[in-house]
Amino acid sequence: MNYTKIDTYLETHLDDSIAELSRLVAQPSVGAQNWGMQECAELVGSLLEKRGFKVEIIPTEGAPIVFGEREGKSDKTLLFYNHYDVQPAEPLELWETPPFEPSRRDGKLFGRGVSDDKGHLTSRLHALDALLSENGDLPCNVKFIVEGEEETGSLHLPAFITANQEKLAADACIWEFGGVDHREIPMQYLGLRGICYVELSVETAEIDVHSGTGGSIFPNAAWRLVWALNTLKGSDEKIRIPGWYDDVILPTARDRELFEAQPDVAEEYKTRYGVKQFLKGLTGGVELQMAEVFEPTCTICGLTSGYQGAGSKTVLPARASAKVDFRLALGQKVDKCLELLRQHLDAEGFSDIQIEFMGGGPAAKTDPDDPFIQLVADTAEEVFESKMELIPMVGGSGPNYPFVHELKLPVATAGLGHPDTRAHAPNENIRLDLYLKHARHMARLLGEFSNITKGGFHARRR
Amino acid sequence: MNYTKIDTYLETHLDDSIAELSRLVAQPSVGAQNWGMQECAELVGSLLEKRGFKVEIIPTEGAPIVFGEREGKSDKTLLFYNHYDVQPAEPLELWETPPFEPSRRDGKLFGRGVSDDKGHLTSRLHALDALLSENGDLPCNVKFIVEGEEETGSLHLPAFITANQEKLAADACIWEFGGVDHREIPMQYLGLRGICYVELSVETAEIDVHSGTGGSIFPNAAWRLVWALNTLKGSDEKIRIPGWYDDVILPTARDRELFEAQPDVAEEYKTRYGVKQFLKGLTGGVELQMAEVFEPTCTICGLTSGYQGAGSKTVLPARASAKVDFRLALGQKVDKCLELLRQHLDAEGFSDIQIEFMGGGPAAKTDPDDPFIQLVADTAEEVFESKMELIPMVGGSGPNYPFVHELKLPVATAGLGHPDTRAHAPNENIRLDLYLKHARHMARLLGEFSNITKGGFHARRR
Repeated sequence: MNYTKIDTYLETHLDDSIAELSRLVAQPSVGAQNWGMQECAELVGSLLEKRGFKVEIIPTEGAPIVFGEREGKSDKTLLFYNHYDVQPAEPLELWETPPFEPSRRDGKLFGRGVSDDKGHLTSRLHALDALLSENGDLPCNVKFIVEGEEETGSLHLPAFITANQEKLAADACIWEFGGVDHREIPMQYLGLRGICYVELSVETAEIDVHSGTGGSIFPNAAWRLVWALNTLKGSDEKIRIPGWYDDVILPTARDRELFEAQPDVAEEYKTRYGVKQFLKGLTGGVELQMAEVFEPTCTICGLTSGYQGAGSKTVLPARASAKVDFRLALGQKVDKCLELLRQHLDAEGFSDIQIEFMGGGPAAKTDPDDPFIQLVADTAEEVFESKMELIPMVGGSGPNYPFVHELKLPVATAGLGHPDTRAHAPNENIRLDLYLKHARHMARLLGEFSNITKGGFHARRR
Repeated sequence: MNYTKIDTYLETHLDDSIAELSRLVAQPSVGAQNWGMQECAELVGSLLEKRGFKVEIIPTEGAPIVFGEREGKSDKTLLFYNHYDVQPAEPLELWETPPFEPSRRDGKLFGRGVSDDKGHLTSRLHALDALLSENGDLPCNVKFIVEGEEETGSLHLPAFITANQEKLAADACIWEFGGVDHREIPMQYLGLRGICYVELSVETAEIDVHSGTGGSIFPNAAWRLVWALNTLKGSDEKIRIPGWYDDVILPTARDRELFEAQPDVAEEYKTRYGVKQFLKGLTGGVELQMAEVFEPTCTICGLTSGYQGAGSKTVLPARASAKVDFRLALGQKVDKCLELLRQHLDAEGFSDIQIEFMGGGPAAKTDPDDPFIQLVADTAEEVFESKMELIPMVGGSGPNYPFVHELKLPVATAGLGHPDTRAHAPNENIRLDLYLKHARHMARLLGEFSNITKGGFHARRR
């Protein structure tokens, strides 16, 4: 494969690809607000069709799933997992330019979803364009599964995968994200923590009551919620739900070894987020990084009750709710966690607290010593001029469990992210130099993918 | 005084007075949102001037205070305390007609402030119009103090009273509110609970963090707030701040006697608010009513943090805040309570929680056996055809303390409220029959006020 020619194509046509990304970002697709999902799925479908993919837009009870496949020269199949949904853009007032009007400045592109995950999708398409332009066809079979519920817990993806194992059959999978760290070193994230996201809510009366009347004698929904939340986790950060930690699989010696090879992130985190200190007396080093990704969490993501405007209003709220994000360690199961949570609240006297499950899935990780991981690392090194580093697990979540445990694929991360990419936050952005590098990396990976003929890679598929 | 003629005037001109009230309600004056305060103060001033009052609109560091006085035939002076500010109208979607577009239907007028407190003001002006029309002048001196910060804690009123005792000198005071209970019996509320309203807030980082990254290692503002709130009050409803109850003056035997004469409110409360049971095992009777008004409270009026929209967002909030309303029993002082709250949060490890004082004042009550109270009751009985009942204290708050303890006035409540008046809630309304009755009551009170020449009423002013 002539990668010099491919690189030239990628550079020459970069603006076209960024224009395509900008059109995709300008189509809002906020899953939490059910905003523009069908329209965005169709747009993604058309981008794949433009590259000769056979495309299906498959409805689910939530957002549609886009599936596309195109045959290539070999009998090997690489599956790309992406998503077209994005996080809500709020708080809008903190954006320097409007989130759905992509803006290019200082070598970056700003907009909701440019990094997570629309930019990953279009830079991969850009790599395909270069290969097609150079060779007229693709070096291997390529499949895309692009879902629309990643940011809301991928509620319908696992069942879809279970029901479509033949359609999705492949030899390996490239995950939706990846990128370089603050030293510009490309990182390989091998695992994702699980998640169980719930909304807890309580209603104590039909209408809000004047707090002068009700304060001493009426139940207060905000208090019920505060007391219930307080039973979930103490200021020692221990989750107090009985049995919560029972199934946790502890990290391995190899996991620790991989983290020990990593530089300290403490100062970088403090600077980036304006945090003065870490929890549980952590100060940095391998302990901080292991805690970040391997421990179960219980995070309040939002609190709502009563009057929240300026000044004061003397009201006793009839309703209160909290969004709570439990990250799950390897081994923990969502259904069991929901059951433990319900039992715990009941036992603590909070049967009045309703639990609404809003999505989730268990944790999963890929073996760091899988030959596919080695290929991804080798091709990355050529582009990024730096050895790819292996991170056994990240703190974030995604639906990798059915890919790893049902499709039985090695799942590698590779991407265009950078530490200030601000995914999920205002002023989300990508660096155009990394956009180009990711396309170059993916072109090389696709070019070499069919050449792995020896060793564990094929053995694994038997 | 010919009260038949006066009643005829009040009935004949009722529509004019309601039209005047509607204009006043159409001028928003939401103190918490600093919306329309100066405009509303000027409108109130013009209403008083129209009746020949000498009017001053006195700026404060908050909303202006409107003061008006007009001499009458005797040397006795009756002071009316009213307020022109209103509670926020939110949640707007629950109003059947827009809050600032008064709507008359089913013998009622709906709109924010029709009851609390603009309707009280205009029905009193209506009474003055009748007296002026009948007699050409007023039977006694009349003063109005109409403030604009009642709903936000009357932050600047006490200092104004302290600095203007001569201007405000009077023989007795009619308070801003009052009304009939669910049996249509006029009620006399003799005391108001104190209040100390604060906003508690905490900031743990400069920006929100992805909950996948931060959940295990970064402090979470929402959790800090929940844990801090949990230290303030337990589910046993006891306020846990050391020293909080030290200065509480317990209710007297006369207080209990007055409540024992009252019918049970338990079933009415349950129906009206859709509450299933009361706190602390209370089921009704005198114990429920005593608890409602005499006990210190700690009420969460609002909770805000992180993502509060639809669906899920995986964010670790950098900021969280709660609005907390402490009602104070007789004897408790605001400054000391603020100090105890700060000391308590510090001692519990929550020095990171900021306290913003948003207004308040101590509790105060008038002697149920004051002759002025008797006059108010007697004149009410004639109009309402039912004996006025005396309630020693209500659960709500207001700035009566400086009226009782600095101006040394007996303060009586009389008004047009009814149990479904929905003050502070959507669909606030008044009944027009009660509007008319309140005007008739006030005309009689003003007509008879100078005739109290014997006994404790004058003795008290020596």
